[in-house]
Amino acid sequence: MAASVPIGKTIYCGTFAHCRSLSELDICAKGAIGVDEAGVIAFIEREVEEIEDVIKKYDGWNDAEVLQSGESGFFFPGFIDTHTHASQHPNTGLFGKTTLLSWLETYTFPMESSLSSLSKAATVYSNFVSRTLSHGTTTCAYYATIHVPTTNLLADICLKRGQRALVGRVCMNMMSPEYYRDASVSDAVKDSKASIDYIRSIDPSGDIVKPIITPRFAPSCTAECLAGLGQLAKETGTSIQTHISENKPEVQLVRELFPESKSYTDVYDTAGLLTPKTILAHAVHLSAEEVQTLKQSGTKISHCPASNTALTSGCAPVRQLLDVGLTVGLGTDVSGGFSPSILEECRQAIWVSRFVAMNTADDAKLSTEEVLYLATRGGAQVVGLDGKVGGFDVGMEWDAQHICLGAVKEGGEQEGRFAGNVDLFGFETAEDRVNKWVYSGDDRNTKSVWVRGRLVHRR
Amino acid sequence: MAASVPIGKTIYCGTFAHCRSLSELDICAKGAIGVDEAGVIAFIEREVEEIEDVIKKYDGWNDAEVLQSGESGFFFPGFIDTHTHASQHPNTGLFGKTTLLSWLETYTFPMESSLSSLSKAATVYSNFVSRTLSHGTTTCAYYATIHVPTTNLLADICLKRGQRALVGRVCMNMMSPEYYRDASVSDAVKDSKASIDYIRSIDPSGDIVKPIITPRFAPSCTAECLAGLGQLAKETGTSIQTHISENKPEVQLVRELFPESKSYTDVYDTAGLLTPKTILAHAVHLSAEEVQTLKQSGTKISHCPASNTALTSGCAPVRQLLDVGLTVGLGTDVSGGFSPSILEECRQAIWVSRFVAMNTADDAKLSTEEVLYLATRGGAQVVGLDGKVGGFDVGMEWDAQHICLGAVKEGGEQEGRFAGNVDLFGFETAEDRVNKWVYSGDDRNTKSVWVRGRLVHRR
Repeated sequence: MAASVPIGKTIYCGTFAHCRSLSELDICAKGAIGVDEAGVIAFIEREVEEIEDVIKKYDGWNDAEVLQSGESGFFFPGFIDTHTHASQHPNTGLFGKTTLLSWLETYTFPMESSLSSLSKAATVYSNFVSRTLSHGTTTCAYYATIHVPTTNLLADICLKRGQRALVGRVCMNMMSPEYYRDASVSDAVKDSKASIDYIRSIDPSGDIVKPIITPRFAPSCTAECLAGLGQLAKETGTSIQTHISENKPEVQLVRELFPESKSYTDVYDTAGLLTPKTILAHAVHLSAEEVQTLKQSGTKISHCPASNTALTSGCAPVRQLLDVGLTVGLGTDVSGGFSPSILEECRQAIWVSRFVAMNTADDAKLSTEEVLYLATRGGAQVVGLDGKVGGFDVGMEWDAQHICLGAVKEGGEQEGRFAGNVDLFGFETAEDRVNKWVYSGDDRNTKSVWVRGRLVHRR
Repeated sequence: MAASVPIGKTIYCGTFAHCRSLSELDICAKGAIGVDEAGVIAFIEREVEEIEDVIKKYDGWNDAEVLQSGESGFFFPGFIDTHTHASQHPNTGLFGKTTLLSWLETYTFPMESSLSSLSKAATVYSNFVSRTLSHGTTTCAYYATIHVPTTNLLADICLKRGQRALVGRVCMNMMSPEYYRDASVSDAVKDSKASIDYIRSIDPSGDIVKPIITPRFAPSCTAECLAGLGQLAKETGTSIQTHISENKPEVQLVRELFPESKSYTDVYDTAGLLTPKTILAHAVHLSAEEVQTLKQSGTKISHCPASNTALTSGCAPVRQLLDVGLTVGLGTDVSGGFSPSILEECRQAIWVSRFVAMNTADDAKLSTEEVLYLATRGGAQVVGLDGKVGGFDVGMEWDAQHICLGAVKEGGEQEGRFAGNVDLFGFETAEDRVNKWVYSGDDRNTKSVWVRGRLVHRR
């Protein structure tokens, strides 16, 4: 198990970058970050001229391994994906011109249903965890399917690979195909409980994998089912994830299915599903009143721009949500989203914010710094790991990625094994390098990935 | 020179895909395309069971080389980039929150100005031509800078590498920095003529490189300068490229600078710059009357969605432009656009069309097939190569790319050297494979690229 491999002390030297706040990207060119045997950041030094001076300064770091960022490389916090469906990855890139409800029927339900097979699930889930790790995702909130054994298998794989994960067994007892649904409310609750128990048995500390209660969304669950899951969350102290207000026909459908509720948000509120440990994906078409309810309950938001664009769902008003004080992270929402990469999601969040700006006001635009914040510290807050991961502060754990960029030689060719599509011509500041990575980078630039100081991916 | 290397007969076997019309993607699973020594498609066979039968059917093809697409691979027409700035590539990914006019001052003019240096230009242009080729671009309409020697160098590089190119020396004699402008109208015309003459001298047939007259855009050129360039185009029979109606402040500026003109379009019309050989980039904010003028003049449109989104310029109403009967291709518009990849531009065209659909009507959405058409046959019409490249028909030239996708093995890992981010699980139809490529593919999936039957890039 990668998660429990013993590690020695390591000092990460050179350039590191991380978000201090929503608007502030801290780039340190001559840094040294000491990570101890527990994977915890023991010290951070800046303006380091000689690494020997750092080693002298701290007792017991004589034998520490020293890892250099390299001249154009830098260390960056691991990404946090606050919403994705591991079970839908075989459909990544297949959506055509469908929108949410037709997409579910055409692509999603048949694929998820097929993951009752343990061997198929092993292939799909192993592949997808490899993918998300290769894109620098160190923590991921996963939806599996309704099947308990393969949901548990996904948790096994994450634990084995050392990726932090929230793993959810999907519940759905209405408006779902005959071939893929919970037979009853008690089945939905019982099977959710079984998966919670299993996941807690394999990682009692919850340091790497944790269960998460996962009603698919209001149109798939009766009020009784939602209430049963709310009760289960209360009894077991488990996190919750579901979808809200993704597209307009869905909002209308919820209005029809739950005529006694004031709003989509009210459906979940009534069921006891809005808590500080709840992650709601999308939040595209909420009323001001709903936003206030979410804020008061401490509910967190997963912004999924790639999916919202691909399925023509709409543009989430992220600036407004942030201004009100909601906590927002990014989610790839595969396979409504077309990429398991949070770096791609950063770009998509920027594009969506520009489309909002075209229709409303210029300050809707999200900056490079802001989307990187959502992808790291914002995401950490969403998944309940605030202060533990998402940035580089003493006492936080080393969930990080080593980014390497390609240098253009005289004559025009790139050099270096990690030469993806980023071209550095030599004039770039450290901030320019981060920008070039965000707009032109991909998994080729993610050389190494660590969770709690353990290497979990290497290119 | 790659362009003039003698080649033997080659038969490309297996799966090929190309666009028959805007809405029709033709995928042939058992195909054989014979390409002769001139790089011209001599025959196309479908439903081929045995390649020997094809060889027997055609005289003189006994010794032809046979190249297989591979089971999950396919041959696709080379992409046509109808608008990009080779000189701005060092700035790719650097734009921050600027919009068009501030972006020009901050990033673009200083960078372009520095390309007076032959050694710097050699590095930047060689790098960028390598990049566009690696993304499968077989024809590219390039803006260089105002400098004649380095503009000519770009043409030399394209000819040497065998990439079809329109290469334009940029003209700008007003509202430009003191350090980077044409001193006079006669200088603008004379230098343009010098570059036209040089490019025609190195490739008299114009089969690979051609000159293109390139006023930057109306705000950079006096009416006299525009008229002089219109006259030069008439006298020399040269193509023309410029920008139109990219963002609203720019449209307003043109209104102020040319008070006697009815519209932005009218400024170019008055100067004699609207011809069937004219490419106008952007066309985001045109009136219905302007669109009619463009149509009547036979002017072509380069849609640059990545750039329009990155610089918050607006969403071009592509469906409307197509419905009126305008000819549209795609342009990467580096470095307003953040990627030299037309595959990325295909995705961006889809996203922009979805944002238009969110605000207007669902039929604004462009399908996968439609953007691939714009990227190939549409682009060929825009750059004057209609019927010659952009599709696979007998008599057309073999400008093509070999796409290879990654297969997921049991257990979840990918196999194959061309395993980028596309995961094939084995259930996919040929159409699914094309879709997965469009949404998840990148230059890793472009194994080989040919122009006129000559190999110009290999991974």
